[in-house]
Amino acid sequence: MEFRIERDTIGEIKVPADKYWGAQTQRSKQNFKIGDEKMPLEVIKAFAHLKKAAAIANYGLGKLSDSKKEAIVQACDEVLEGKFDEHFPLVVWQTGSGTQSNMNVNEVVARRANELLGEHSDEKIHPNDDINMSQSSNDTFPTAMHIAAYHAVKNELIPALNQLKQTLLEKEQAFMDIIKIGRTHLQDATPLTLGQEISGWRAMLEKSEKMVQESAEHLLNLAIGGTAVGTGINAEKDFGDRVAEQISKQTGYSFVSSDNKFHALTSHDEIVFAHGALKGLAADLTKIANDVRWLASGPRSGIGEITIPANEPGSSIMPGKVNPTQSEALTMVAVQVFGNDAAIGFAASQGNFELNVYKPVIIYNFLQSVQLLADGMISFNEKCAVGIEPDHEVIEQNVNRSLMLVTALNPHIGYEKAAEIAKLAFKEGSTLKEAAIKTGYLTEEQYDEWIDPKKMVNL
Amino acid sequence: MEFRIERDTIGEIKVPADKYWGAQTQRSKQNFKIGDEKMPLEVIKAFAHLKKAAAIANYGLGKLSDSKKEAIVQACDEVLEGKFDEHFPLVVWQTGSGTQSNMNVNEVVARRANELLGEHSDEKIHPNDDINMSQSSNDTFPTAMHIAAYHAVKNELIPALNQLKQTLLEKEQAFMDIIKIGRTHLQDATPLTLGQEISGWRAMLEKSEKMVQESAEHLLNLAIGGTAVGTGINAEKDFGDRVAEQISKQTGYSFVSSDNKFHALTSHDEIVFAHGALKGLAADLTKIANDVRWLASGPRSGIGEITIPANEPGSSIMPGKVNPTQSEALTMVAVQVFGNDAAIGFAASQGNFELNVYKPVIIYNFLQSVQLLADGMISFNEKCAVGIEPDHEVIEQNVNRSLMLVTALNPHIGYEKAAEIAKLAFKEGSTLKEAAIKTGYLTEEQYDEWIDPKKMVNL
Amino acid sequence: MEFRIERDTIGEIKVPADKYWGAQTQRSKQNFKIGDEKMPLEVIKAFAHLKKAAAIANYGLGKLSDSKKEAIVQACDEVLEGKFDEHFPLVVWQTGSGTQSNMNVNEVVARRANELLGEHSDEKIHPNDDINMSQSSNDTFPTAMHIAAYHAVKNELIPALNQLKQTLLEKEQAFMDIIKIGRTHLQDATPLTLGQEISGWRAMLEKSEKMVQESAEHLLNLAIGGTAVGTGINAEKDFGDRVAEQISKQTGYSFVSSDNKFHALTSHDEIVFAHGALKGLAADLTKIANDVRWLASGPRSGIGEITIPANEPGSSIMPGKVNPTQSEALTMVAVQVFGNDAAIGFAASQGNFELNVYKPVIIYNFLQSVQLLADGMISFNEKCAVGIEPDHEVIEQNVNRSLMLVTALNPHIGYEKAAEIAKLAFKEGSTLKEAAIKTGYLTEEQYDEWIDPKKMVNL
Amino acid sequence: MEFRIERDTIGEIKVPADKYWGAQTQRSKQNFKIGDEKMPLEVIKAFAHLKKAAAIANYGLGKLSDSKKEAIVQACDEVLEGKFDEHFPLVVWQTGSGTQSNMNVNEVVARRANELLGEHSDEKIHPNDDINMSQSSNDTFPTAMHIAAYHAVKNELIPALNQLKQTLLEKEQAFMDIIKIGRTHLQDATPLTLGQEISGWRAMLEKSEKMVQESAEHLLNLAIGGTAVGTGINAEKDFGDRVAEQISKQTGYSFVSSDNKFHALTSHDEIVFAHGALKGLAADLTKIANDVRWLASGPRSGIGEITIPANEPGSSIMPGKVNPTQSEALTMVAVQVFGNDAAIGFAASQGNFELNVYKPVIIYNFLQSVQLLADGMISFNEKCAVGIEPDHEVIEQNVNRSLMLVTALNPHIGYEKAAEIAKLAFKEGSTLKEAAIKTGYLTEEQYDEWIDPKKMVNL
Repeated sequence: MEFRIERDTIGEIKVPADKYWGAQTQRSKQNFKIGDEKMPLEVIKAFAHLKKAAAIANYGLGKLSDSKKEAIVQACDEVLEGKFDEHFPLVVWQTGSGTQSNMNVNEVVARRANELLGEHSDEKIHPNDDINMSQSSNDTFPTAMHIAAYHAVKNELIPALNQLKQTLLEKEQAFMDIIKIGRTHLQDATPLTLGQEISGWRAMLEKSEKMVQESAEHLLNLAIGGTAVGTGINAEKDFGDRVAEQISKQTGYSFVSSDNKFHALTSHDEIVFAHGALKGLAADLTKIANDVRWLASGPRSGIGEITIPANEPGSSIMPGKVNPTQSEALTMVAVQVFGNDAAIGFAASQGNFELNVYKPVIIYNFLQSVQLLADGMISFNEKCAVGIEPDHEVIEQNVNRSLMLVTALNPHIGYEKAAEIAKLAFKEGSTLKEAAIKTGYLTEEQYDEWIDPKKMVNL
Repeated sequence: MEFRIERDTIGEIKVPADKYWGAQTQRSKQNFKIGDEKMPLEVIKAFAHLKKAAAIANYGLGKLSDSKKEAIVQACDEVLEGKFDEHFPLVVWQTGSGTQSNMNVNEVVARRANELLGEHSDEKIHPNDDINMSQSSNDTFPTAMHIAAYHAVKNELIPALNQLKQTLLEKEQAFMDIIKIGRTHLQDATPLTLGQEISGWRAMLEKSEKMVQESAEHLLNLAIGGTAVGTGINAEKDFGDRVAEQISKQTGYSFVSSDNKFHALTSHDEIVFAHGALKGLAADLTKIANDVRWLASGPRSGIGEITIPANEPGSSIMPGKVNPTQSEALTMVAVQVFGNDAAIGFAASQGNFELNVYKPVIIYNFLQSVQLLADGMISFNEKCAVGIEPDHEVIEQNVNRSLMLVTALNPHIGYEKAAEIAKLAFKEGSTLKEAAIKTGYLTEEQYDEWIDPKKMVNL
Repeated sequence: MEFRIERDTIGEIKVPADKYWGAQTQRSKQNFKIGDEKMPLEVIKAFAHLKKAAAIANYGLGKLSDSKKEAIVQACDEVLEGKFDEHFPLVVWQTGSGTQSNMNVNEVVARRANELLGEHSDEKIHPNDDINMSQSSNDTFPTAMHIAAYHAVKNELIPALNQLKQTLLEKEQAFMDIIKIGRTHLQDATPLTLGQEISGWRAMLEKSEKMVQESAEHLLNLAIGGTAVGTGINAEKDFGDRVAEQISKQTGYSFVSSDNKFHALTSHDEIVFAHGALKGLAADLTKIANDVRWLASGPRSGIGEITIPANEPGSSIMPGKVNPTQSEALTMVAVQVFGNDAAIGFAASQGNFELNVYKPVIIYNFLQSVQLLADGMISFNEKCAVGIEPDHEVIEQNVNRSLMLVTALNPHIGYEKAAEIAKLAFKEGSTLKEAAIKTGYLTEEQYDEWIDPKKMVNL
Repeated sequence: MEFRIERDTIGEIKVPADKYWGAQTQRSKQNFKIGDEKMPLEVIKAFAHLKKAAAIANYGLGKLSDSKKEAIVQACDEVLEGKFDEHFPLVVWQTGSGTQSNMNVNEVVARRANELLGEHSDEKIHPNDDINMSQSSNDTFPTAMHIAAYHAVKNELIPALNQLKQTLLEKEQAFMDIIKIGRTHLQDATPLTLGQEISGWRAMLEKSEKMVQESAEHLLNLAIGGTAVGTGINAEKDFGDRVAEQISKQTGYSFVSSDNKFHALTSHDEIVFAHGALKGLAADLTKIANDVRWLASGPRSGIGEITIPANEPGSSIMPGKVNPTQSEALTMVAVQVFGNDAAIGFAASQGNFELNVYKPVIIYNFLQSVQLLADGMISFNEKCAVGIEPDHEVIEQNVNRSLMLVTALNPHIGYEKAAEIAKLAFKEGSTLKEAAIKTGYLTEEQYDEWIDPKKMVNL
């Protein structure tokens, strides 16, 4: 490999000749050979938005020349287009402020911007003095975290959630009149319709969506303007506001500069909170995916009230076996989100004085959760949920032999006599009707009037 | 001990003669000898509100006589007054629907209400047919969970949080002009004021309060009206609305009956979400408590920039030692909240079909978190935060010898030359000024003009 | 209430006249009004063992008079007998070193020992100078943690586990020949016997027992001898060894004084590790309890292959309903153990320099896990597992109609043709045999020879 | 891209012409577009060991021809050499049994083995009938999990841990005589030596190593031989033993076939337990890394008792700043391990009947923890620990002015008088000696004799 020599305040260092990064990126690459988890490109792209907006703000404040600003803006746009994706090689497990990834962006953008200025330009763009002007890693990294997190929620998670929600809504409506047995404690209970059951799943997604959306709003607060410790040293008073406004223009979201920058650099309560909503969603998805696989269990010795698509051979040894694999993938995703939630909460608690230095691990886990949930919901929707169909025969058989229809007798004969009937039927293996009449607590006519699954579901 | 004989649909059972509970409570006591953690009285009180409101609603719907309603209402009021606290002996580790605690309330209220009706009354109040009329454990227990959780948040947590926030606000204002060294990565950084530092803590509490309040709003949705499986079997269509309205009257909160009862019985995403906000608060409190104890560390060989009250002898072996014990209690509380958060998320994911049967463990952990956080904040406030005082001498000494004041030179001489100065001062053990002048990058006059901690904090 | 005046190095304080505790306990009571969770009595009892052993060791080293030693020993024995249980009022949420509970024990034992010496004795026993002689909270509290934790594991957890294991072993043997359908991915799979299925549960408990036992051995290391910071200041060199030996005599366990006291005061890796084994057990119990409730699901529209005892009415609204409540309690216990595990791991990571100050929250969670698991297993065993019975009819029906018996054809006709047969049977709703013969891949005779569930289970 | 047509029991599917995988792998790729986390190559390599050993065992049992066996063995060896790394494209988020990765291996090995047999061979090797002979995903995937996990622990984690331990041991010895102040509760305490302090860290690693090693032994149990549901259907009785023995030969580890295969397919308690030891290690590393950064804090306004290497510019805004970045990376790694631990425990609890279908997420998290801990320890060792040096001047200054030396007076004048002296010195800002003499409790000579830090550390 060919190298060029770069330098920073520590000294000289060899950098691969074909790479845009500089000395500090190279140093981090060498000092942190830990794991394979790269700083997510979403964070790099968020940085590109930020560096662009900062250049425009600095230009507006008279601190950056027009030509430099133009070059930086174009360089950032190219990063946003993905032209430099392989020039951001750093891992998550670096300095806890994300300084090295901030510098990685500063270096790549500076190098590209200098190229754009041209070799013979009088002006020279410096990674720190120009690209990082009026900024610190301590305010830019959390800013990029919020931009990336908010965008991922809005752009990935919510659309995926809505696809699945829409499918469930359609199933809910299509199956609204199919009366089936209810189950509580896994035991036969009073009836409901398949559509009603699915409406519970749909309502879970609606509720989760609302909570995700509400909590994500807090991510609109950006640390930018706080610089090194929150006081905004080396930045103009309104630099943060200008940058937030400019990023909003670029992204279409309503970012603002945080009220209190000391909070913005040290607390990640907003991310903990937003991820709490993701955990709620993960819990809901677990429940939905479990219901689907249990309802589809069998085909002959399970519950078998619905069928789901057979997408692949299920077993390497059992021929013809079909498994609820999408439920399995989705529930594994949920488990990961639970783990990530624990990691984020702990990391967020560990700030000291003017900085929390667990930022990379926090945003890595947050973005992983978003991606897995989004991808998982799309996959579950397309490969499973859309194909859910009722098995009318099984459903009907189950509801008809249920003993818990007896519940409808409570208002007429009281809980205790009703219990007596159910127990009798269970003991004798008879139908509920036979048992009811045998006790003498009601007549056949009364039974037929009072015990009507259709009325019990209160459609 | 004297006993009386009670019976339920399983058969007869001996119950202590002086206790108001009945057969099902007694059975649960005997069947679940697990741990000492009682079903929280907050849940019992919430049930009392609910049973009272249900009686009023059933009366309004013509399903309960006036005399029964009156007796039940009075019995519930007495439970609310705490007259029957020792009659709710069940533990958390019972049936996962909370049926046994619902029946415990039904039994105690029924027995007391029958007493109030009088021995010779024609009417007899039945735990199931009257107290539980139009209800199931499956909708009442989650209803009681939300009432108890919301009330605890509003009545315990928020006031405690506000006390501490107010103290911090006062400290922030009092210390706003005390310039001190900033610290990032635990390393000396650019200055800020002690008031600014504390403003970050105050902003944490403000932000957390907002997130707790927002997320708690979702707890206003009550499952009541869903009965056994969400269809509302055996309840009038508007029973849920009537009860929610009545509970709102009784409590002053704005409860409503949930849009989708299938969700309300099976998902606890609202509690996961609200507890996520508590976790954010726990993370913030950990940071605050850590900052306090580190700033107060020493007295002679630590940071020692603040002093905190000496409330007790700190050591059983080291005489005269004073420890930051309130920080320790508060961070232990935070750890417990983290653990509770993991338990709640997992439990919430485990619903099947029409019910989630992890309800008692969910509400137990939620209420424990609220109580510990509330008590912890009050204790930390009263015994520690109110007594925080700056040690001016130490603070001044630290800020004056800091090398990071050099940051203010960036806009004038650039990052790299500024770094050179800082490194020179560090290497030679000299002051920053001496090093700056030695490099020749700036004059003494320029130094004095540019390096002014007061300007750096941007008050 | 009547009071007496006590004093410590902070000053005077009023203490209830009838209580044996002194000034520092009283101060803690007033300074830490946080929650209701008391320092577990198991810890207090462990302290009593320790204080007794320390007195004997100090006497042996010539540092304590015979009369003082005798008085202290008797006072400790009385604490062990439970005579002073109400004199240990402190909560978990106190100083993180447990100093206040150490002093609580020192104070109660000193007061009682002085009583035993008699009012007119020349000797006066001092909580610090005598009861705490050669000790610090920093080594005594972790010592008490290990004693309490080890004892709880050995005395509560293991016996409870063995009861349940024994029941499962009996069921395993009793049901070893009952061939039933296997289920993987919740889908019908090849057969096994009910005894084999239960043997998996029994093996889980065996494995968990082994892991719990192995990991608990690390708890035999005691911090005693390290005193304030691990150097053993103010203690004789072999004080730790003498005390460990004496405690071993008293308890029958093989405690030793830790090799490295700096580790013993700051790391709780042994407890993290031992609790990891408890988490493994909790995971196993969740699986067992889930299997039981699913196998018992129905009674008519579930899997219904086994029956479990009906211990109580299951529903407040559905008459005659019976629920798997012991499974529910046990899985809630498991959830709590998961949460506790998160709390303990985090707490154990937060040591600084010579001390970890999260000790009370660590031991509280550990002991809660042990108690809940132990009680939960006993309850599950007595009220559920002992009553598990097969429903032969359902079991037979399920295994006979299974399509996955086709797997036995793989070695004869290959996976792909076998799959063809299974799919044909599924599609046509026919028996496997009908489909097999229809394809022409094998004769009826071959089918009858090759497809024999009895051979498939490899007993 | 060019394609070829492959088929499985579902039907035909297009596969990239240059890839060795077959229909089922391709189907999984298309059905599970979830995340970027690939099934770890360590698992694939473990599978290659297993498939090789299975071929040899099947050959030995007379079920596979010599030529087929030879071809399979060579194909597996090539996979082990890494020649086919890009032919294993599947993600973690697939079927929960790992069936698709098992089939991926079966397909690649079969295709390569067929190549080796030659186009014109009479024999044809089938992914299911030959490569998967006597196996199921349900026993092979957990077998591969244990092989991969055990190897990673032994080959990556333990050597990394030992490197760091060795460095700490050297520092411990080098600094054994440097007396410094102890700190408990972050407050000045009695002295110890820097070597003693570091010995606590070293002992943490020793203890953790022991626990990791002990718990890893349980991973030596392999599920192989259980096939589809644990009964071993379609496998010879001693197939599992033969394979385990053969794998042991290949790897040098002492694997055995599990006693109870029903356990082996459904419980992952061994992995939960082994990961619990990793969590203990993570907690210990957090403590060590925190101590290092706090001891190195400053350089001028922190504790500053040690220095660590300056590997890179610390700040993008503060020139000359040096940060404890290796501590930051290592503690972020620890946080991830905590999160992973939560995920693994939960996943392990979710088995049903004859299978746990959370296997991929379990092994993904386990292997990530191992890699991050191993890499993190190496990085921390090489870039930080080896360069730890004491700052003698600061250390001496801190110990000399400490008030807690007063503890040594307890045995001479009692705790209460000693406390009086410490408080007087603190109040008056005097030295301990001045205060001691002023109280009159001891003479100057006694002070000089009794207060000697050297004696207090008990070397």
